[in-house]
Formats: sequence, structure tokens, C-alpha cells
Amino acid sequence: MIVLGSTGSIGVNTLNIANKFNLDVEVLVAGTNIELLNKQIKRFNPKMVVISRKEDISKVKHHNVGFGQDDILKAIEESSSKTVVNALVGFLGLRPTLKAIECRKKIALANKESLVVAGKFIDQTHLSPIDSEHFALWYLLQDKKISSMTITASGGSFRDYPLEKLEKVSIKEALSHPNWSMGNKITIDSATMTNKMFELMEAAWLFDTRNLNAVIETKSLIHGLVNFEDGSSTAHIANASMQLPIAYAILGKCDEQVLEPVDLVKVGSLEFREIEKQRYPIWEVKDTILNNLDLGVVLNAANEVAVSKFLNSEISFLDVSKISLAALEKFSNVKTNSIDDIFEIDKEVRVYCES
Amino acid sequence: MIVLGSTGSIGVNTLNIANKFNLDVEVLVAGTNIELLNKQIKRFNPKMVVISRKEDISKVKHHNVGFGQDDILKAIEESSSKTVVNALVGFLGLRPTLKAIECRKKIALANKESLVVAGKFIDQTHLSPIDSEHFALWYLLQDKKISSMTITASGGSFRDYPLEKLEKVSIKEALSHPNWSMGNKITIDSATMTNKMFELMEAAWLFDTRNLNAVIETKSLIHGLVNFEDGSSTAHIANASMQLPIAYAILGKCDEQVLEPVDLVKVGSLEFREIEKQRYPIWEVKDTILNNLDLGVVLNAANEVAVSKFLNSEISFLDVSKISLAALEKFSNVKTNSIDDIFEIDKEVRVYCES
Repeated sequence: MIVLGSTGSIGVNTLNIANKFNLDVEVLVAGTNIELLNKQIKRFNPKMVVISRKEDISKVKHHNVGFGQDDILKAIEESSSKTVVNALVGFLGLRPTLKAIECRKKIALANKESLVVAGKFIDQTHLSPIDSEHFALWYLLQDKKISSMTITASGGSFRDYPLEKLEKVSIKEALSHPNWSMGNKITIDSATMTNKMFELMEAAWLFDTRNLNAVIETKSLIHGLVNFEDGSSTAHIANASMQLPIAYAILGKCDEQVLEPVDLVKVGSLEFREIEKQRYPIWEVKDTILNNLDLGVVLNAANEVAVSKFLNSEISFLDVSKISLAALEKFSNVKTNSIDDIFEIDKEVRVYCES
Repeated sequence: MIVLGSTGSIGVNTLNIANKFNLDVEVLVAGTNIELLNKQIKRFNPKMVVISRKEDISKVKHHNVGFGQDDILKAIEESSSKTVVNALVGFLGLRPTLKAIECRKKIALANKESLVVAGKFIDQTHLSPIDSEHFALWYLLQDKKISSMTITASGGSFRDYPLEKLEKVSIKEALSHPNWSMGNKITIDSATMTNKMFELMEAAWLFDTRNLNAVIETKSLIHGLVNFEDGSSTAHIANASMQLPIAYAILGKCDEQVLEPVDLVKVGSLEFREIEKQRYPIWEVKDTILNNLDLGVVLNAANEVAVSKFLNSEISFLDVSKISLAALEKFSNVKTNSIDDIFEIDKEVRVYCES
């Protein structure tokens, strides 16, 4: 490839990538940082080098050194490289962009001025922007290899409650969800984080992966993130309303407004927290459960019994998780080989937890 | 469709969607909230209703009322609806899910227990989850109709600087970017927000839309958002490094790790701010420019001259934007009909701004 502006920040990063992926560098174009340029020449052994000023040529450790815009354009024209990385700064990056298009080369464009001033005349067929923002926009529209997925949790009724007082909370407090109002059962499941454990198990089935995690996002505006092999993530952001998932689940697709868009400036800030095992004891067995989804029927039966007992004032809030954990311990070797097994185990676990 | 759990929060939202999209409701299944059920019957006129308890049947204002699990299963089996929304709570939602699968109906599944306890035995061919988290994950992987796009800005060197002191800032202060180190020109462009204006114009060309905006995200971890017609947004999240966009621009695709993933718990919080016109005067002309991209060559030439003057201590920081705004005013009727025009106008604007 041809690197225009090799000693600037984009140029240096480009050469890091060339190094990492073992890419050939045919031409290096730089300004006045001859010291760095000489290091780059040594490492990448280009066929040609072009610099800004004629008077610096003698300092460049290369046998084929040109200078100025005409030599840049000539280097593009005469090169056999298929790709030009244009990281020149300012308007003077425009002609090299036009020349690269004329020569039907692929352009990795960091020179934003090319599009800013002459976008109307730039053929984008072989052009990719190098800019984190445009990359983000483009990226959100592509297929990528997924490494893991993260869902978010509100943290439930007790996310800000003093840990040492959790034992004594009332039913009323447990039913006060910070972000919205739901049924009693799911509100308690949200407070114990069992609801999120359920969702991870569902995600394991739905997306056929065990690389799953959850994080607390206190305003419930980011709902899920897909984490890709390359180190990026994408997030889905929407106001918390079930109407959107419902519309899609029923209609399959929905191209009209269902929710008010989220105004991030009005939102002001988003806060992320770890799901602490002290506050949410069920999180102790997250990996155990994700590695043995057969335990789902055990956790669910135990939790249904326990939540019902809590809502009947028979046990304390922390006992809810204790009952679930005890049942998971007791039935740790459970195997479900048929749907009949599910109903059988459900019954057994309920009997165990009632006693 | 069939709505199981019509008087709960998911059921009510489902009926809102049925109302909005004029969908037929064949069966309503509810628990003990007969008052609300009767309202729903009046509005949707279902063929059949099933409730929990036999003793409530006389209170239901419908001629065809069943009760209990067997009647639910029978209603699913005998209905002509293609879709079952299962918003029953708890394990008792499992059998209806299995029955709906057996009858080859499409299932919109809010009963999370079905998958939690019996995921292994659930055929997902016609199943869509109703859950904001799974919906988010699924959503990120789909094609959708785009309504607008948002990119983020760091806010540059003076985002936290007292407004009244902006006139007197030094070159050194202007070159101290809060989040990273770049070349001088782009660091000044970032401080004046002209850089972001450039990026919006680039986005207009790249994505063929004028529905573009920008917002300050102070940690530069979210880079861009795509806003969809339905009211959702997706965001691209990655540590701030140009290596990722570069790798994609060069390689086309990249399925190995280039960056460390962002750890949202370590990040702790994200902050969003408006791009204020007082702090960033260039933002005054955002819409003018997006509606006339021919102005790109004017803004760029004026800005290049102005930044150069500022870095030579010839003008103050605020004069940089003033010169750009004056040039945009002076050349507001500019039209570019050829690439030669671009070079011509660039020269004219420079001459104007130098004087």
C-alpha cells in the first residue's frame, strides 16, 4: 500500500496495522519528521519515499526520494499498490485523493477535507473512511463475528440499600422497583437478580452461546450489547417500554415510530455497576448455571416457592436466594432427558423447598 | 392472535399494539382482574375468554368463558390465530408454550420460564422473545429503516473552560486535548467544534442523509449512533484508538482482536452534553451547511487560514470561528459545478480571509 502522511498519528497507527497484518508498504509519504521517517524506511523497506521539502532529501536514508505534490501524484500513478491510505492534513490531501480514484485504487481516507470540500465529486465506490465516528455508523450496519453478549440490569429495589440491612427489608420495600412498575413476582426476582439469571439462560438458548454477562445500567436505557471479536461493542438504546419488543415480536418488523427516541443530552449521564455477589447472592452460581442449563428447572421451582413464601411473610428477603442456592446444591446432578423429566423435577424441587 | 395474560403489564402493552396496528384478538386469557378483562372484551370482542377461577365466570361479560389450564390449551388448539402472545407468569406458562409449538403457531414469548426451565425442548423456529434485553441483542443484528444518525464529540480543549475567558486562551491551552494527542490543526478544530462540523458533512456524503447531529460524550467511548424510525438507537462502543477503523478500512473485515474491549463497570459512567452555540460558535451554521454542502470548500479554506493565524499568534482563539463565519456569510451563494470550481473558490476564500 501507499501511506500518505506516514509520520503523523494516523500514519503511525496505519504502519502498526501493516506490521500486525504483515502488509506490504510500497510508498511512504511524509513531511519534515525525517528521523521517524528513516525508522519507518528501515522497518518497511518501501520502493519509494516522498517528502515535503527538497532541502531534506539528503537526510533521508533511501535511494529513491522525491518531494512535493507532483511527486506524490506521480508515486500514486506509478505504484502497483491497490490501496492508498490518505492521512495528509488539509486541503492539499484532495489532489492525491482524486489521483487515487483516477487510478482506481482503494482509498482509506483520513484526509477529511477531501469529502468536506469536494464530496460532490468524489466517487466513493472504493473509498472507506478512517474516522471513529463514521466507522461507528458504518459498523452498526455490518455483519461481524460475535465474541460475547452483555445484557443490562436495573439493579432492582435494593441496589442502593445498605447491605447489612438486607435481612430485614419489608415486602413493601421489596416491591418498590426504582425504574418501573411490574408484577410482584418479577419485581422480587429483579431485586434478587434471579430475573437477570433467567434472562442469561434464555439468551443462552436463543443465541446459542455461553459467553454471556450482565451489568447494571441504572437508567435502563441501554438494554443489551453485542461484543465482537475485534474489541468493539454495539449497544441497543431505547426508552424502557415493552411496546417496541412486542411490536417486533408480533409484526416481525416495524418501520414506524413506536417509542419516543432517547435524547442523550436530556439523559445527561449513564451509570454502570458490577452485579455484586454480596448484594445478589444468586450471582455466585452464574457460571455453574450457564454451564449446566438443566439447572433451570431447579432454580425456577425453588425460586417460585421462595418468592411465594416471602410474599406471605413466611421468610426474610435474603432467605429467597438461600432457598434457591440450597436447591441448586441439592439437585446439582440433575439431568433432563425429556419434557416429562422437567415436570417431574419441578415437583421434586418444590416438595424439597416447601419443607 | 391469542393473548395469554391479557391484564398484566405485558398483556396491556400487547393490546396497545393490537390497537395501534389494528390486529385481531381471538382469545383473551386472564387471571382474576375481571374488571379490566371486561373492558378488554368490550374493546376487542374476542371469540373466547379463559380465566383462572370457575367462580369468577359469572362476572365475565362474554358468552364463551372457560377456566383453568385445560381450557387455555383447548383454546390454543381450536383457535385459527397464527400468533400466541404468552405473557403468563411462572412455570404454568410452559404447557401453553408447548401447545402453541405443537399447533405450529408463532409464539411471542414473555413467559421467560418456558425457556429457563425447558429451553432444551423448545423449538424456536417460530418463537420471538418479548424482553427488552434479548430484543436488544437480536435488534443489533437486523436491518432496519434509519431515521437519523448521531456522532459524538469529545468537546475539545475548552469544553469545561469558563466561557467568558475563551477570548484570552493561549495556544498551549488550545493544544491540550482532554482525551488524546493529535496534530495541532485537528486539535484546534476539535476545540472550535469545526472538526465535528467537517465530520457531519462527511457523513452527509457517505451516508446520503442530512438527518445528522452530534452530541458531546466526554469519554469518547461511544463513537456513533444510528437512530431508527421505530424510536430505538444503536451505538458503537470501543476504546478510542484509530487502529480499529484503520484495520477495517484496509482489510475490509476484521475478526480478530484489535482493541481491548471496553469494560463498562470500570468506565463507571458516561456523560452526554449539548454542543452549545456560545462555546462553539460554528454550531450556529450547522443546518445552513448541512443544507448546502457546497459551503464545505468555503469553511475549510477559511478555517485553514484562521487556524494558521491563531497558531502564529496573529489572532485570538475566538477569532478562528469568527473568520470562518464571516467567510460563510460572504460566500453564502457559492455554487460548485466542477472540480475546477473547488480550486478556484478555495483560492478566493483564502485571499478574502488573509486580508
